[in-house]
Amino acid sequence: MTQGHVKAEQATPGEAYETDVIIVGAGPVGLFAVFELGLLDLKCHVVDVLDRPGGQCAELYPEKPIYDIPGLPIVSGQELTDRLMQQIAPFHATFHLQQMAESLERLPDGKFKLRTELGTTITAPVLAIAAGGGSFVPRKPKIEGIEPFEGKTIHYSVRQMERFRDKDIVIAGGGDSALDWVLNLQPIARSTTLIHRRDDFRAAPHSVAKMRALVAEKKVRLEIADLKSVVGADGQLTSVGCVTKEKGAYEIPCSELLAFYGLTMKLGPIANFGLNLNENLIPVDTEKFETNEPGIFAIGDINTYPGKLKLILCGFHEGALMAQAAFRICRPGERLVFLYTTSSTDLQKKLGVA
Amino acid sequence: MTQGHVKAEQATPGEAYETDVIIVGAGPVGLFAVFELGLLDLKCHVVDVLDRPGGQCAELYPEKPIYDIPGLPIVSGQELTDRLMQQIAPFHATFHLQQMAESLERLPDGKFKLRTELGTTITAPVLAIAAGGGSFVPRKPKIEGIEPFEGKTIHYSVRQMERFRDKDIVIAGGGDSALDWVLNLQPIARSTTLIHRRDDFRAAPHSVAKMRALVAEKKVRLEIADLKSVVGADGQLTSVGCVTKEKGAYEIPCSELLAFYGLTMKLGPIANFGLNLNENLIPVDTEKFETNEPGIFAIGDINTYPGKLKLILCGFHEGALMAQAAFRICRPGERLVFLYTTSSTDLQKKLGVA
Repeated sequence: MTQGHVKAEQATPGEAYETDVIIVGAGPVGLFAVFELGLLDLKCHVVDVLDRPGGQCAELYPEKPIYDIPGLPIVSGQELTDRLMQQIAPFHATFHLQQMAESLERLPDGKFKLRTELGTTITAPVLAIAAGGGSFVPRKPKIEGIEPFEGKTIHYSVRQMERFRDKDIVIAGGGDSALDWVLNLQPIARSTTLIHRRDDFRAAPHSVAKMRALVAEKKVRLEIADLKSVVGADGQLTSVGCVTKEKGAYEIPCSELLAFYGLTMKLGPIANFGLNLNENLIPVDTEKFETNEPGIFAIGDINTYPGKLKLILCGFHEGALMAQAAFRICRPGERLVFLYTTSSTDLQKKLGVA
Repeated sequence: MTQGHVKAEQATPGEAYETDVIIVGAGPVGLFAVFELGLLDLKCHVVDVLDRPGGQCAELYPEKPIYDIPGLPIVSGQELTDRLMQQIAPFHATFHLQQMAESLERLPDGKFKLRTELGTTITAPVLAIAAGGGSFVPRKPKIEGIEPFEGKTIHYSVRQMERFRDKDIVIAGGGDSALDWVLNLQPIARSTTLIHRRDDFRAAPHSVAKMRALVAEKKVRLEIADLKSVVGADGQLTSVGCVTKEKGAYEIPCSELLAFYGLTMKLGPIANFGLNLNENLIPVDTEKFETNEPGIFAIGDINTYPGKLKLILCGFHEGALMAQAAFRICRPGERLVFLYTTSSTDLQKKLGVA
């Protein structure tokens, strides 16, 4: 068995491919589906918009520990990804990375033809959507005339802290991102103002306590107010406008605004695949995790059913049951023999250990 | 976080205990349920007939590798058990080992009172049955007058290979156990005969091929026949009787018979808990994994529902969803806040890492 880092086997973009199962999403759930399908001798092609496997897990919190993967008391998103890549290595899935699954067509023979934004096409009798929350995009403040400032002096994320040194910054929001950046940027900014619509913060209590201490020391200015407008010219902010019931409208001079109003999920082109949607989630049954469209399955955070929990470990289960149904579609008439990796020499051969 | 081997915290037998959730079965699924319940601040008592946690996993194949636990490309039953014990250590579950869950009573206040065979009683509003396959017992040949020979010259397992040195042995069966013991005992036995009812073996192909090679070399005698009778006196076998359509009835002289007709599941006293049963499995819904009896849940190999796979990873999922329902029963009126271990400082404090 290969140890350590396993590289994704990448396909040339723009070509036409055929396989048993197309998996959209290379997060942990999509990766483990390769394993369960592989045990049944089904080949997979995996499509992901990111440039490497791991999904949100490796992208949003590569170094942050996860504690609830069964049997792994503590594991980082990156380590979990590496472990899954090692586990599925025997099955040689083909990866189509850095390309969004763009359109889907049902062919006359019932198979699906998926086209990516790079012109790659993959044809298969089964499609498994393991796209997590889709693509996450920041939720923007609803303020008129904000666009000319975006990416210049209005920000929804921090790429480089140095950008804010000696600046008069306003941070808007009440969650962990807003509070974390107040604490991180206050030491380098010239002035730091936090604006939140009410005096109650969703952020971790110890962050809130630290912020309140800085306010008491007059190192941070806290405004409980609604952010209503932005003032400036040529993309350069000069102040933001606030409103409260007591004070009415007033302005806070600043040169940079950082707004952390949370992330919103963007499903992307999957929304046009002809599937039933329920608040951007795909309803499935709990026997096969199949969507309203026969042959299309949805596993992991993107699906919904009674009792659903958005946990990685639940997506593993969903992938295992989906694989059984995928076999019946890909190999009609063949008998599905359910074997255990612990006792079956046949499975151990597939895994390269017998 | 504690590293390495975590010992189960054992309760004194014969006493009366109260808790939030009683878990019957300390296999991997029962252990991980402690984790999911612990995240919700629910306390657990775990009952198992074995003398240590791990269930079948640690008892039947402690050293055999398992390949399909997500994120653990290869793990032994014992290592998986150790890892889960480490993962649940922060929640200090109480273990009641070496005692069967014997009887169950619903108290007037709706709580359950479970009594073990050692006289321990545990009272709780929720019972989670994670008893796997119950107890496994060997399936016996249906032959009259077999009892006096059992444990003397008729065997359903091999404790000591030396017992069979220089003996004339007959092995009955067509699965892995029968074939493995033909291959292992033939070198030391005086003569080895394999009896199977048809010329088609469920065992691993390479074992079958090795057996056929030994038959070709006349080192093993293969009889495609029905085993019908046993002959001998005072527990000492002298021959077994076979029948085929072609040859009719005939005897094979031997001093030892090893019958490997598979294992059969014995549910034990759980069968008397008033739960609906379907072929010794407990039907549950897929939202909460609750049985027909409100407050009693069944997770892991012991339950059944459409699509059910008897995989450890599926039991993990079932435990996670069960925990949510258990919370609502144990803490009526309290709000269940669904948090992630990766982002919640509150959960990280419970895990002892924040």
